[in-house]
Amino acid sequence: MSLSPRRRVAVVGATGVAGQQFLVSLDRHPWFQLTALAASARSAGKPYRAAITNERGHLQWGCEEPLPAAFAEKVVVDASRLDLGEVDLVFSAVESGAARALEERMAPHVPVISTSSAFRYEEDVPILVPGVNPDHASLVKRQQRERRWRGFVAPIPNCTATGLVTALAPLERQFGLRSVIMTSMQALSGAGRSPGVAGLDILDNVIPYIPKEEEKVELETRKILGTREGDRIVPLGLPVSATCTRVNVRDGHTEAVFASLDRKASLDEVAQALRAFGREFTDLGLPSSPPELVHVTDDPYRPQPRIDRRINDGMTTVVGRLREDPALEHGVKFVLLSHNTKMGAAKGAILVAEHLVHQGLA
Amino acid sequence: MSLSPRRRVAVVGATGVAGQQFLVSLDRHPWFQLTALAASARSAGKPYRAAITNERGHLQWGCEEPLPAAFAEKVVVDASRLDLGEVDLVFSAVESGAARALEERMAPHVPVISTSSAFRYEEDVPILVPGVNPDHASLVKRQQRERRWRGFVAPIPNCTATGLVTALAPLERQFGLRSVIMTSMQALSGAGRSPGVAGLDILDNVIPYIPKEEEKVELETRKILGTREGDRIVPLGLPVSATCTRVNVRDGHTEAVFASLDRKASLDEVAQALRAFGREFTDLGLPSSPPELVHVTDDPYRPQPRIDRRINDGMTTVVGRLREDPALEHGVKFVLLSHNTKMGAAKGAILVAEHLVHQGLA
Amino acid sequence: MSLSPRRRVAVVGATGVAGQQFLVSLDRHPWFQLTALAASARSAGKPYRAAITNERGHLQWGCEEPLPAAFAEKVVVDASRLDLGEVDLVFSAVESGAARALEERMAPHVPVISTSSAFRYEEDVPILVPGVNPDHASLVKRQQRERRWRGFVAPIPNCTATGLVTALAPLERQFGLRSVIMTSMQALSGAGRSPGVAGLDILDNVIPYIPKEEEKVELETRKILGTREGDRIVPLGLPVSATCTRVNVRDGHTEAVFASLDRKASLDEVAQALRAFGREFTDLGLPSSPPELVHVTDDPYRPQPRIDRRINDGMTTVVGRLREDPALEHGVKFVLLSHNTKMGAAKGAILVAEHLVHQGLA
Amino acid sequence: MSLSPRRRVAVVGATGVAGQQFLVSLDRHPWFQLTALAASARSAGKPYRAAITNERGHLQWGCEEPLPAAFAEKVVVDASRLDLGEVDLVFSAVESGAARALEERMAPHVPVISTSSAFRYEEDVPILVPGVNPDHASLVKRQQRERRWRGFVAPIPNCTATGLVTALAPLERQFGLRSVIMTSMQALSGAGRSPGVAGLDILDNVIPYIPKEEEKVELETRKILGTREGDRIVPLGLPVSATCTRVNVRDGHTEAVFASLDRKASLDEVAQALRAFGREFTDLGLPSSPPELVHVTDDPYRPQPRIDRRINDGMTTVVGRLREDPALEHGVKFVLLSHNTKMGAAKGAILVAEHLVHQGLA
Repeated sequence: MSLSPRRRVAVVGATGVAGQQFLVSLDRHPWFQLTALAASARSAGKPYRAAITNERGHLQWGCEEPLPAAFAEKVVVDASRLDLGEVDLVFSAVESGAARALEERMAPHVPVISTSSAFRYEEDVPILVPGVNPDHASLVKRQQRERRWRGFVAPIPNCTATGLVTALAPLERQFGLRSVIMTSMQALSGAGRSPGVAGLDILDNVIPYIPKEEEKVELETRKILGTREGDRIVPLGLPVSATCTRVNVRDGHTEAVFASLDRKASLDEVAQALRAFGREFTDLGLPSSPPELVHVTDDPYRPQPRIDRRINDGMTTVVGRLREDPALEHGVKFVLLSHNTKMGAAKGAILVAEHLVHQGLA
Repeated sequence: MSLSPRRRVAVVGATGVAGQQFLVSLDRHPWFQLTALAASARSAGKPYRAAITNERGHLQWGCEEPLPAAFAEKVVVDASRLDLGEVDLVFSAVESGAARALEERMAPHVPVISTSSAFRYEEDVPILVPGVNPDHASLVKRQQRERRWRGFVAPIPNCTATGLVTALAPLERQFGLRSVIMTSMQALSGAGRSPGVAGLDILDNVIPYIPKEEEKVELETRKILGTREGDRIVPLGLPVSATCTRVNVRDGHTEAVFASLDRKASLDEVAQALRAFGREFTDLGLPSSPPELVHVTDDPYRPQPRIDRRINDGMTTVVGRLREDPALEHGVKFVLLSHNTKMGAAKGAILVAEHLVHQGLA
Repeated sequence: MSLSPRRRVAVVGATGVAGQQFLVSLDRHPWFQLTALAASARSAGKPYRAAITNERGHLQWGCEEPLPAAFAEKVVVDASRLDLGEVDLVFSAVESGAARALEERMAPHVPVISTSSAFRYEEDVPILVPGVNPDHASLVKRQQRERRWRGFVAPIPNCTATGLVTALAPLERQFGLRSVIMTSMQALSGAGRSPGVAGLDILDNVIPYIPKEEEKVELETRKILGTREGDRIVPLGLPVSATCTRVNVRDGHTEAVFASLDRKASLDEVAQALRAFGREFTDLGLPSSPPELVHVTDDPYRPQPRIDRRINDGMTTVVGRLREDPALEHGVKFVLLSHNTKMGAAKGAILVAEHLVHQGLA
Repeated sequence: MSLSPRRRVAVVGATGVAGQQFLVSLDRHPWFQLTALAASARSAGKPYRAAITNERGHLQWGCEEPLPAAFAEKVVVDASRLDLGEVDLVFSAVESGAARALEERMAPHVPVISTSSAFRYEEDVPILVPGVNPDHASLVKRQQRERRWRGFVAPIPNCTATGLVTALAPLERQFGLRSVIMTSMQALSGAGRSPGVAGLDILDNVIPYIPKEEEKVELETRKILGTREGDRIVPLGLPVSATCTRVNVRDGHTEAVFASLDRKASLDEVAQALRAFGREFTDLGLPSSPPELVHVTDDPYRPQPRIDRRINDGMTTVVGRLREDPALEHGVKFVLLSHNTKMGAAKGAILVAEHLVHQGLA
């Protein structure tokens, strides 16, 4: 790994739910020094703590971890006026509406690692998942060449796709995948807070629909598992069918997965493939990397979001209930848990950035 | 329909969660007069209200509806000593452990409609679902002939299978089914109260495993959708794959279903088949019958358990989110909601009994 | 009671959470014919069902009861242009911000029964609670005289005060009250839906603060329990101290009350006073009236919101856990439950209107 | 502090919910070496992990923190046969029923720090709360003298009393207390898991009664705040009135407190007294001690259990919403949060033990 000097990084959209997660995960980061907190003009000019405190004196901080003292008094800057000469890398946690314009302004100058979907479906933009598709990363050079950018945009996927591709990638590589069916039971934090899901609506309830979610999961899964061919990614020709629901859970998306493999594999082989996955990546020992990308449990009552989302600080996909599937050819089924605001959002984006630095791309 | 005189019925296991549901649904029933409340020896001899009141004076009544005044002071009898000469029909809501012995004692004398699984898998025992497999009902005559019983045992299925077969039956009949994949998000009331699911375990959580549930769903679905051939039922050769989970919902099982059909059907045709299903049954106007067995909604955010479980007093399966499934041949997918303690338990059993009376079998 | 002809009534703010509750409680009302549904200009001109259906086809209906068919296709009118010549009475369910201006426009022409706080603290405006302060009602004549209005404004109290004053009134009358301390555990529906309380914020949580709530409860309790002296109400000189919290409950406010009485009263006397309260009111048999204003339970585990909010369709205050209070002079303590969207809002306002009609005031 | 050698400690009742908490808090403890895990005969002889794994392979571990690897394979011993010559100190986390006999067997030989109520109300037994009543601790010498024990029993209080006395002690000392009224909103973990509170019962609900809880809180508060006079504790003659309820929260008891002081104190003085409390104790720097016993927040929306229970690993009582109370003489009111399974149980007991060691009593 290049012994690169410490990077100066900005978080854009720093006051929102996703932005706050970035602050937690960048606190005392060994490589990235958070030098700029950017948000809308309304917050600009205020110390961060003041910017997220409402008129009644309530601190609108949504993370389990406390607000890092190092950033509490840092003055927020206007995202549209962020001095890009002063930062080496930007983490964009901007809501989809505003993301396109902001990222388009920044990417010509600096690498932008984004949680938004604004650029995900462009041909010269990879969707990066730590350890899953490292060979897609260098596609950012095409952006630099063709768009004449010095920086680039590298989005991470929708948080529901993250765990899914992490569990599917080893199956695809080792056995081949024919089709995938998935039902998600997604956490509230995936919907943010304003408006998010009303307490009134989710109490004693399941909401069986999340707008655009299923399309994103299906499209992104195929792209992430796709093959790099020269300067483009050929999506995997994999039929993916998702039903995405919301349940009354704070953090951690649970997914019931049913997969048809290309060839017969025993449950032991499948478990072995899952357990072995990503060793070459985790062996890099990147600062935000978990010791294992996938953890397989034999406890039939696991994974459970409240218990298992904490494993390796939410950076490991936990797989359980591995069984043969009687309804699909060479079918296997399992339940996975992925932490939607850790690996599925801010900390996952930071790990992507670490890997890009490691690869010499950022 | 035979203008049969009013039946005297007993509820066995009357003090438990399922038993209480029977009381609610038998209150002022036009055909069935509840003449005996039977439970364990511990409760015998006490007025019903006293039998379910704990030592601190707390009424352990678990239904939304109040305890029917007509039954509150009725003295509970010992189930093992129930005078079978005094009743024409028995509803058994006994826990699985004790059900086998009790039902074996009663069925030689009177028809026993049961929510337990004790007899479900015997060759001469049908698993009855209202409107779904009426031709299976007369299999009880084989019991009477071969076992030399005057009565019989007619169990209803596991509550998770009820909604599933109700939605699958019209698809099987009209288009043929090749395979079915289902993920359930089941309500707490399905697990009963002692021990049931601890509040501590389900808060902010999903529990991805319910012992024996998936096996029951798979087995019972095939049997209920099977064909009556002479004196036996030939199960449908349908691969069914289920993942059953528990969510923090009081009543109403939500199921995400993915089905492969034998032939291409448009979503309109599928919706039409679902909507038309069971007309000949609902037209009978049985006392506990809903006006429609399946309700199809176009609202993408429905069905939701808290909202939709009340439709037609929980006797209708609500289907929504009907979409094509890209991962299965001639695939369709949808989300259904079935009330696990109404159609899926006591009131469903009562409707089965009403139909047996109507068919002249009870 | 005057055999008045059927009144034509309007609901203003008909599309909101409180407005929807009015529709449910006015469906098939024997005295009030809902002839106008009024809302903001944005909804005006659309059939009601369409006005509350979002762009994805989702019906934003928040009541347990279904949308009454009689009103579903009724075209919504612009509240600011409501033809006041066409209605005899208005129910205002408008959010506080807009309520003042709208009610000020309507009250000169027709009686306005309001759930908003806009006029509650004016000297010539009574805050009416069914059966609690019927002698306050005629204060509306002072409005008519001094403001030269043909109509008037008659607000109901904050939903947290409703149950409190209903339980305190009999104690004040029979024993006298010295001081009252109360901690509320309030339901989510009291906060509405937009924004309301986020699911993310209330899951696994208690929120110990509801802006302005404690002040309202303290002020309104004193006014409602106050004495009519000529053309004014002299508030009761009663120290009231409230701590209002939000808990993860859908409907039904639970309140732990500690009261110091003027003279020693046994628990039996207190229970007796509570049980006997309001007979003269309930004996009127008004259409929305419960058979009893207060229900006292001996079950130590009651009242519970999920169980007891349904009693008498949410129109009865349920009191339990009656005990002596060792910390207050002649102290008693108890827990009460009041349904915040039934007696505490729409249906309570309708009962107030029924009584005003009965009193010949509306 | 005596530079005592490392103590060998046993946890009795190690497999239960409270026992598990001890394991977490004793992991890598600098003074206490956990040398024996004791439980019922049923668990004896099994490695700890196996003893808490059910027949389906499910690890019944209830803590947020993972099972410490150091103890997972340690063989559980039968509590009734624990070799008391091999341990220097015992932590008893035994359910009340069995606690009396077990603690009576152990205390003659070794100090027993207990979470049970078995001995709490005996005249020669102090109820110890860290930093609150250190002068009560030496009462254990009376046990040793009069009962001729080498060890002693030192119970901690009911978890609801812990936070209450921690907040009241500084008020009593600085201003004097006349009376206290308190409503608790208690977490599920306080009720344990078997049976605990059923998910079915607490969903969308508040349960307004916890058997024996109010009596314990009232009695223990007076004893803990009482005065040491020679060889006895004279309870404070303070009227305490509690209403204890259960809410759908995992950990952290919220308490709304209303207190009448002996003399007028400004809110600033009260806040100052709370903030300053326990400095001499926290300055000792005991291993499990928080940096502050009481944290006062100005954020009106705090304390919230989900957010604030984590502060200082649950060892600090968080106080917010400090206001004047209009209904009590020299009244103040506030809301406090105390972590019922940390300071209120295992880790609080460990901190008591550390202090006893520091005082040379254990």
